[in-house]
Amino acid sequence: MTDSPPELSSLNRIRVVLVETSHPGNIGAVARAMKNMGLSDLALVAPRAFPHAEATARASGADDLLARAWVMPSLDAAIADCSLVVGASARSRTIPWPLMLPRDCARRMQAEAAGGAKVALVMGREKSGLSNAELERCQVHVHIPANPDYPSLNLAAAVQVLAYELRMAALEAGSALPAGKVLERDQPLATAAEREGLYAHFERALAALDFYDPDNPRQLMRRLRRLFNRAELDRMEVNILRGILAAAEKAARAEGRPAT
Amino acid sequence: MTDSPPELSSLNRIRVVLVETSHPGNIGAVARAMKNMGLSDLALVAPRAFPHAEATARASGADDLLARAWVMPSLDAAIADCSLVVGASARSRTIPWPLMLPRDCARRMQAEAAGGAKVALVMGREKSGLSNAELERCQVHVHIPANPDYPSLNLAAAVQVLAYELRMAALEAGSALPAGKVLERDQPLATAAEREGLYAHFERALAALDFYDPDNPRQLMRRLRRLFNRAELDRMEVNILRGILAAAEKAARAEGRPAT
Repeated sequence: MTDSPPELSSLNRIRVVLVETSHPGNIGAVARAMKNMGLSDLALVAPRAFPHAEATARASGADDLLARAWVMPSLDAAIADCSLVVGASARSRTIPWPLMLPRDCARRMQAEAAGGAKVALVMGREKSGLSNAELERCQVHVHIPANPDYPSLNLAAAVQVLAYELRMAALEAGSALPAGKVLERDQPLATAAEREGLYAHFERALAALDFYDPDNPRQLMRRLRRLFNRAELDRMEVNILRGILAAAEKAARAEGRPAT
Repeated sequence: MTDSPPELSSLNRIRVVLVETSHPGNIGAVARAMKNMGLSDLALVAPRAFPHAEATARASGADDLLARAWVMPSLDAAIADCSLVVGASARSRTIPWPLMLPRDCARRMQAEAAGGAKVALVMGREKSGLSNAELERCQVHVHIPANPDYPSLNLAAAVQVLAYELRMAALEAGSALPAGKVLERDQPLATAAEREGLYAHFERALAALDFYDPDNPRQLMRRLRRLFNRAELDRMEVNILRGILAAAEKAARAEGRPAT
């Protein structure tokens, strides 16, 4: 069971996604940290060993979260129904990406979840974190401002910090305290699956238009993903952009058609 | 080594005191959490087993903190030189005591340490916490507002939360902390004129593609403006989008050209 107060029910819509965790003990410790903070939705993408006695031992009394955990073959599957996807990032990347502190990020996530959306917090592997391709599936990257001489937190410790901030944000929102930014929105946020559909459509349309960066064709899609993830597209915006892409594809096909 | 920035030197005056810890693995995990957050002063009151291979293993690269840890026979000895002593409390006590949230408490501790005082954070046993006699040696009790149905955090997880708040307080005090979202940017933001150029280009390209919302043609441009303004486009992104629009226009012109 998670918290009963209705003001904390937003925490039920926040999923923690662990990608390719190596040590089952860490999965258990994450479950405990989550339940301590009132989170309950755990997804495991291709864990090395699960279920596992060590996971159960470290979960202490949080083994109900392990029993209900989703085991998924891919990150895309684990986040498909999530509107806001946040990835934990330890390093700065070649392409800079909007990077938030845990507190601001948690307020943002809480506000979204309180509005009824599904939200995901994606955590990478113990040794190497999330890949660039995985981070590009996240609209926001969250970074714990650790000691630069020793920055790598244990996986469960990082989840503990972020889950704590999520709980604080929910508690703040439940009281009269002003918390974070209120987003005025007339359309639901697009889901991860809808965003991926848009990016795939962009790739097809750009190919049809013969539009690519000859020096670095993959860099172009990365920049477009970054732009549109940052914009936090709503569903109607995705539909508008796909409508434009479909019109451009149609024109390109006609252009390529041999004159009759 | 802890952080070099002088504004974080206050963290060197904050000691974590673990009272009668049962599991050496927890001592190691505490050392790692401390070092991750820039703390370095660890005191152990009558640990059940220390030093211990499990402590070293869980400390990862923070074994230097273990090597320098004070092992003390009593809590009084471990806090003797400390001006402000804070005790972690999970339960409400029969005698009410000033109870602070981690964030406020960390700010209070940080301010004290920045003024040159020694500060202690005292953590109790895994199973039973601090005794009443021990809590009465603390001026302030700090309480992590956990899920009431499952309130007991792992020892290292609790230290992680409190050490994180201490680091945040030190960063805030040193104003080494950028407020809000940190946008790492490798390109200058587009100017208003560049944005207007983009929107005008969108209008031309959409007209060429015969793409418009028959119900409300002006609504479409309004939605695109809102989307791209929200995204805070940089110059390269404007150039990429205009490149795509130019390619679409070219295709549309070719499509409209009468067959020869």
